[in-house]
Amino acid sequence: MRIGIYGYGNLGRGVECAAYVAEDCELVGIFTRRDPKTVSSAFGTAVYSSEELSSMADSIDVLILCGGSATDLPEMTPELAEKFSVVDSFDTHKEIPAHFARVDAAARAGGRLALISSGWDPGLFSVARAYASAVIPNGCDYTFWGRGISQGHSDAIRRIDGVLDARQYTIPVESALRRVRGGECPTLSAREKHKRDCYVVAREGADLARIEREIKEMPNYFADYDTTVTFITEEELLREHSGMPHGGSVIRNGVTGRNAEHTHTVEFSLSLDSNPEFTGSVLLAYARAVYRMRKRGEVGCITVFDVPPVMLSPLSREEMIKSML
Amino acid sequence: MRIGIYGYGNLGRGVECAAYVAEDCELVGIFTRRDPKTVSSAFGTAVYSSEELSSMADSIDVLILCGGSATDLPEMTPELAEKFSVVDSFDTHKEIPAHFARVDAAARAGGRLALISSGWDPGLFSVARAYASAVIPNGCDYTFWGRGISQGHSDAIRRIDGVLDARQYTIPVESALRRVRGGECPTLSAREKHKRDCYVVAREGADLARIEREIKEMPNYFADYDTTVTFITEEELLREHSGMPHGGSVIRNGVTGRNAEHTHTVEFSLSLDSNPEFTGSVLLAYARAVYRMRKRGEVGCITVFDVPPVMLSPLSREEMIKSML
Repeated sequence: MRIGIYGYGNLGRGVECAAYVAEDCELVGIFTRRDPKTVSSAFGTAVYSSEELSSMADSIDVLILCGGSATDLPEMTPELAEKFSVVDSFDTHKEIPAHFARVDAAARAGGRLALISSGWDPGLFSVARAYASAVIPNGCDYTFWGRGISQGHSDAIRRIDGVLDARQYTIPVESALRRVRGGECPTLSAREKHKRDCYVVAREGADLARIEREIKEMPNYFADYDTTVTFITEEELLREHSGMPHGGSVIRNGVTGRNAEHTHTVEFSLSLDSNPEFTGSVLLAYARAVYRMRKRGEVGCITVFDVPPVMLSPLSREEMIKSML
Repeated sequence: MRIGIYGYGNLGRGVECAAYVAEDCELVGIFTRRDPKTVSSAFGTAVYSSEELSSMADSIDVLILCGGSATDLPEMTPELAEKFSVVDSFDTHKEIPAHFARVDAAARAGGRLALISSGWDPGLFSVARAYASAVIPNGCDYTFWGRGISQGHSDAIRRIDGVLDARQYTIPVESALRRVRGGECPTLSAREKHKRDCYVVAREGADLARIEREIKEMPNYFADYDTTVTFITEEELLREHSGMPHGGSVIRNGVTGRNAEHTHTVEFSLSLDSNPEFTGSVLLAYARAVYRMRKRGEVGCITVFDVPPVMLSPLSREEMIKSML
């Protein structure tokens, strides 16, 4: 399959890395809205201006969209889904139904297949929720994120006056995780589920007490959580906090039995050294599915719920039955 | 969907329990090779002789086959797949391709859809292996079972002279589990992965030392494992070991990055109070998928790899997108 990558930030690089090692995949090019001369590929992939994309529709089987969910994808995915089969990682949960409808209309108009909201959450975590709730309908669901870097929360800290740089780790509260893993179905507030750990580089002479207060009182982002703020040097930030680890767990506790006397716990968890590289790998697997399902004649918008596992694997169905079933 | 259950042992009762609470499911009857008068349903489901089944093909949408993999299913599934859409839990891993071929031929001849090897292993664990290997192709896989009752190993102990009853727990070796969860890819022998814990009720006056030796030296079943044998009374066995808990974990460690410098761990784990009730719930979810996929015109034999998550859920696709994606 011939793959194009649209957008070359962390996620675009992650997809490139995955495509580079996949044997069934030819990487046609990276498409950027920046000047292509200023962008150099880590793996020597050709870099084109996004304006050249429309003339290359015949040489790309699936275009993987690596823009952000806030402003890029809401426009990018519907626009490109008319000319290309696409995969995106749109992750603004409450906007997904509206995004789905727009992308579906565009893909149908162009006779293409589009898969939205891939990655790990939404994506593999959604799949885990679907399987777990289908097999034990009578139960309760929990998602814990972390320990991992939240880009949005790190950015929010960086916007505070006097802050030069920052990293924020989202961390599940151990005692909550233990209760849920033990089969309980507690009602948990935001504060009871996650805590937030911030590493901040402040400008020399900045009022550290004010910065710490502004972080801890920031509505939505930090006010509802137990938050720790640690001021460190830029060197320490680069040395200790330049990775992009993430992960988390989807846990469902459900009951069966005449009197609901048997409890079952289903857990799917991820521990990732590099969030963008793992997400890029997931996007490439779903691009493979889109490629195959389009060849079978499917059009419109689909999600991870519509994709059978057999479509994701580079192995044949027979090999999968033999080696994994 | 109208469901029939063929075979009424522990698994058949587990399916009945799941079908009883599923709102989209009508339980037509239990079919048994025993005298139906000797079988009484826990939920008041009608019990028929298996001989009556052939006249009821029009009133059953999916027949769930709850026989054993050793002798029942190899004959039962191909035979019934010609007249019914069926789901089975055939779990003799190395015989699956041959079973698949026989069932596929029968289902195609009759224009039916059959799904084999459902449950949790094979079944949900297979699905977990498929997703994990598709998204991180460069990696290693591990499956740990337990802590849980192994029926086959318990039966093997019961066949020893002087043994009245026995329960065998398969238990993952903690240190191995910890290494794998930590991202390592060690080569592990059978002994290094699992240990076996046996609770045995011996006949009065039996030679306990001989029984213990015969257990520990039994080839395939125990000789390759660290095995503990504890002699207990029948009362204690019934009081402490009459449940059927099981579970386990599928773990894949994989790497990404230019120099494979980033490690990712994907884990799917189950902790089950009742193995047959959970397995029965999984079989019912896959029966729902068979019902829907048959209506879409699919015939032949399929496995869990062919089923998209959307087919398993009692929720609509729109509800799933809204609540789980």
